[in-house]
Amino acid sequence: MSIRHTYLINGDFNQTLSPLDRGFAYGDGVFRTMPMHHGQPAEWPLHYQKLVADCASIGLVCPSAELLISDMVHLFSAADNQPLVAKIVITRGEGERGYALPAVTHPTRVVMRLPMPHYASEHFLSGVKLHLCKTQLLEQPQLAGVKHLNRLENVLARMEWHDDCFDGLMRDKQGNAVECTMSNLFARFDDVLVTPDLSQYGVDGVTRQRIIWLANTLNLQVRIDVLPYAKLLLADEVIICNSLYGAMQVSHVDGLKLPQHDLAHRVRNALHQ
Amino acid sequence: MSIRHTYLINGDFNQTLSPLDRGFAYGDGVFRTMPMHHGQPAEWPLHYQKLVADCASIGLVCPSAELLISDMVHLFSAADNQPLVAKIVITRGEGERGYALPAVTHPTRVVMRLPMPHYASEHFLSGVKLHLCKTQLLEQPQLAGVKHLNRLENVLARMEWHDDCFDGLMRDKQGNAVECTMSNLFARFDDVLVTPDLSQYGVDGVTRQRIIWLANTLNLQVRIDVLPYAKLLLADEVIICNSLYGAMQVSHVDGLKLPQHDLAHRVRNALHQ
Repeated sequence: MSIRHTYLINGDFNQTLSPLDRGFAYGDGVFRTMPMHHGQPAEWPLHYQKLVADCASIGLVCPSAELLISDMVHLFSAADNQPLVAKIVITRGEGERGYALPAVTHPTRVVMRLPMPHYASEHFLSGVKLHLCKTQLLEQPQLAGVKHLNRLENVLARMEWHDDCFDGLMRDKQGNAVECTMSNLFARFDDVLVTPDLSQYGVDGVTRQRIIWLANTLNLQVRIDVLPYAKLLLADEVIICNSLYGAMQVSHVDGLKLPQHDLAHRVRNALHQ
Repeated sequence: MSIRHTYLINGDFNQTLSPLDRGFAYGDGVFRTMPMHHGQPAEWPLHYQKLVADCASIGLVCPSAELLISDMVHLFSAADNQPLVAKIVITRGEGERGYALPAVTHPTRVVMRLPMPHYASEHFLSGVKLHLCKTQLLEQPQLAGVKHLNRLENVLARMEWHDDCFDGLMRDKQGNAVECTMSNLFARFDDVLVTPDLSQYGVDGVTRQRIIWLANTLNLQVRIDVLPYAKLLLADEVIICNSLYGAMQVSHVDGLKLPQHDLAHRVRNALHQ
């Protein structure tokens, strides 16, 4: 399958990435992925705020929202008639070889126009299966929650399954459920929605945050807590979320059938409002 | 300071890196750095063997030695009259957005011609100071020892000091000394050379391996073991090593003066033979 894409590097269609870009050399950068609606990034204020915070967590100053919006205006149009995704990458820019920071940092900003993945309608209707990953999430408080470019753990976890699982559940060393390779996680117990604490690891996604905020409107309380895998299996229902597909009901984890109600449906409706 | 460099991507001076290259997107790749002597890579069989092993550890097939040597022949010459470094990066190549592997993988190979860093002669004569890093090395057995492109921990650790420290000592969560941001570590206790066990984390460098092999010729036994930081401070002497500078005596860690003898000098001589 050929890869069709267009991108701007520092606002320039002709600029190329150097192998001395620290994003390539060391994964020294952060990124965001968001759906585009009629040429506009969905939930832009939240995504931009998170991008600024993630940049700051590795000592980078994020390019201005005006620059990023200007790039998107060049890449997307209100007339786009297919579902599209914008991916933004900010790196520490080019440097000499070696870990020491450049004397002056000129961050590299990349904005990409990409196709929206196709999500089967049965996933929205009947829920999705999760693989149970053996690859563990490590505790690194300095990088916890940050969507940085060091994603080999996710890659290794994603290499574990070749069946029809939609995503893979990742746990920490103690066996607590943390997140999926590309999704955050919520488990409902009566009227309490538990989502794993991401202060030690994981990616604290924008859609997770939105669900935490809107839980009230669904008459649910949110608890951010440790979530042992054994406890997850006892939940009344489990959903996963990310910025592209919104929310999906989990039908199975590791082949075990989970109870299913309508939480993902209710969350999707609330997200769309 | 301007960056002077030349590189080949997949053997081509005109090829560029895509932001969809998984090396850039996820740090999904591995690398090596080695000195060039009269156009030839030093210790090439070891470096190539390690590159093959590191590729395999993330499920990649390394390009042939012939291709890599051919790239180096295009970039370096026996007539080069300045000290140079070759850096080789192998990534999983371009993919669609998302962690799932491409249906067919076409690895990207990058070979770079770079200047050798300048090492002050006083570092070889009087030893080097180490900063004691707060950034911890995490246990990730699947990636332990591998020189992969997920190097944010090293970057964060290197951001910790701005004084004349040559490198920074990194420890694990338990406080064991493991390695430095760009170097491996040996501590001598009488006639035993202890180097930290890298089965859970760290980068198992080629020069570390060479020192393990040549210890015999220095009448030293090698023990690969856990090395608590408190124990390191009681060593008869401590050295650090990498493929570019060889070995250096450590004069101070965290401002504490360490005993110094002639181990780094003896190791350098042995490495040069």
